[in-house]
Amino acid sequence: MSILVVGSVAYDTVETPFGRAERVLGGSASFFSVAASFFSPVSLVGVVGDDFGEEQLQAFRGRPIDLEGLERMEGRTFHWQGKYSLDLNSRDTICTDLNVFEFFKPKIPARYRGSEFVFLGNIDPVLQRQVLEQVERPRVVACDTMNFWIHGKPAEVRETLKKVQILLINDQEARDLSGEWNLVKAARAIRAMGPETLVVKKGEHGVLMFSEEGCFSAPALPLEVVFDPTGAGDTFAGGFLGYLSSTGQAGDAALRRAVVMGSTMASFCVEAFSLDRLLNLTRPEIDARYRDFENLTRFESL
Amino acid sequence: MSILVVGSVAYDTVETPFGRAERVLGGSASFFSVAASFFSPVSLVGVVGDDFGEEQLQAFRGRPIDLEGLERMEGRTFHWQGKYSLDLNSRDTICTDLNVFEFFKPKIPARYRGSEFVFLGNIDPVLQRQVLEQVERPRVVACDTMNFWIHGKPAEVRETLKKVQILLINDQEARDLSGEWNLVKAARAIRAMGPETLVVKKGEHGVLMFSEEGCFSAPALPLEVVFDPTGAGDTFAGGFLGYLSSTGQAGDAALRRAVVMGSTMASFCVEAFSLDRLLNLTRPEIDARYRDFENLTRFESL
Repeated sequence: MSILVVGSVAYDTVETPFGRAERVLGGSASFFSVAASFFSPVSLVGVVGDDFGEEQLQAFRGRPIDLEGLERMEGRTFHWQGKYSLDLNSRDTICTDLNVFEFFKPKIPARYRGSEFVFLGNIDPVLQRQVLEQVERPRVVACDTMNFWIHGKPAEVRETLKKVQILLINDQEARDLSGEWNLVKAARAIRAMGPETLVVKKGEHGVLMFSEEGCFSAPALPLEVVFDPTGAGDTFAGGFLGYLSSTGQAGDAALRRAVVMGSTMASFCVEAFSLDRLLNLTRPEIDARYRDFENLTRFESL
Repeated sequence: MSILVVGSVAYDTVETPFGRAERVLGGSASFFSVAASFFSPVSLVGVVGDDFGEEQLQAFRGRPIDLEGLERMEGRTFHWQGKYSLDLNSRDTICTDLNVFEFFKPKIPARYRGSEFVFLGNIDPVLQRQVLEQVERPRVVACDTMNFWIHGKPAEVRETLKKVQILLINDQEARDLSGEWNLVKAARAIRAMGPETLVVKKGEHGVLMFSEEGCFSAPALPLEVVFDPTGAGDTFAGGFLGYLSSTGQAGDAALRRAVVMGSTMASFCVEAFSLDRLLNLTRPEIDARYRDFENLTRFESL
């Protein structure tokens, strides 16, 4: 089943302790779409400026990614610049030039409107809702958000969450959204806002998923080199929802495998700048790494 | 098989956001012994002052814990006082009164010397070696240490590690001991110092075990209430080594189950002050919680 994704398509300038990448492809919808496209067709909704050329579009070509919804506007493409700390666990935003993204009004092409799976990337919660108003009867709506919206538009975030089945956010966002430090309490509070399923991303510490079936914990793969964490969260979401959509299921067993597939895809993303590793990835490599997660976590009953 | 443990037996005064406990039973050897005694007989080596009475000893009575090696010295018992942050993720030591522990010279009773499993709690690495010199032919030596020794007596720590098969330390200690931030690199460096197996305790983020067989990751149980983390690491070690010793094995499958059993015991420890929860724990409760860890982590192959 095809997945509708709305989010940013951007240029990133990234500094890590290992190097610097200048104006490379980034944005939540870019990472999500390429990761998800290994499993399901993707319908992309976003906006770029007239400085976004065929070279950048190559990342999406040759994959089942529909670009009809990628609007081209006069002006420059969204540009984010950030610098990571030595341990890669924190980053400073050096600049955020919204450019054409400031005027983004998601327009859903007619042939996208029957999508059964929808991913609302981290954009204004009002725009997220406008997307949902343009789709017919989605089976699963998954959503990301961030502290900027949680603190800046709390009522709008709450309103959007009422229409969401799966919320994917990081641990700090879960704490801020719920006002609870303890993640078990935070999950209960957030699930009461709407999403049946909460996926809490903890970076190098893995993922916790809370649902009606209880809690599922998946580690991150311990990697010797984490080159650039940019996009790991959106790549996780792409692997998660892409895999879930490919199964056509949304029960606990499928959700658990989807979390591991999201972690699998994220573990590739951080190995290189931008989408570089995702773009030369093969399905056998993905399946082998999924098995690495099985080896990493398996233990016997007493 | 019986386990020889050497470490502190102490009074703790602990403040958490949930309350305060005054001069309650603590110390690495106390937590370790009670946790391990659910699985294997324990031979305890430690020292207390003449203020340590029958009431405190009750914690060990009625369990397979041999107290012949618990020396009583004139003076006061080791007393530690600490206060936890609101999120329980950090703590300040308010005072450390070593008292009789300052003069502790581990003396291993004759009937302890054939122990096949040895746990060297977090004491001076020179004393840890003196313990090993008094035992005959241990099959498995497991060891804890801390930054105080890693920085204060680096050469002595290295010397002790040559004689250790399993090192159990936390993530910060692993980084400090190896000089590597990345835990995969840190593990390789530490395993080259002697220990075949490194168990890295990450608190609420679980445990990573590195061995010849690769890496194993186990989560901590997501708990709604963490009442007092004091002793969780030593309780983990007690569950880990107690279970391992009870299997008589030391291969990868047994080590993985031992990590989960350590995590199981630690999850009980943090539910109350001191050893309170461990002391009213039953084996069926332990087995049920081990199964909680299975439910928490299981997922299917693709």
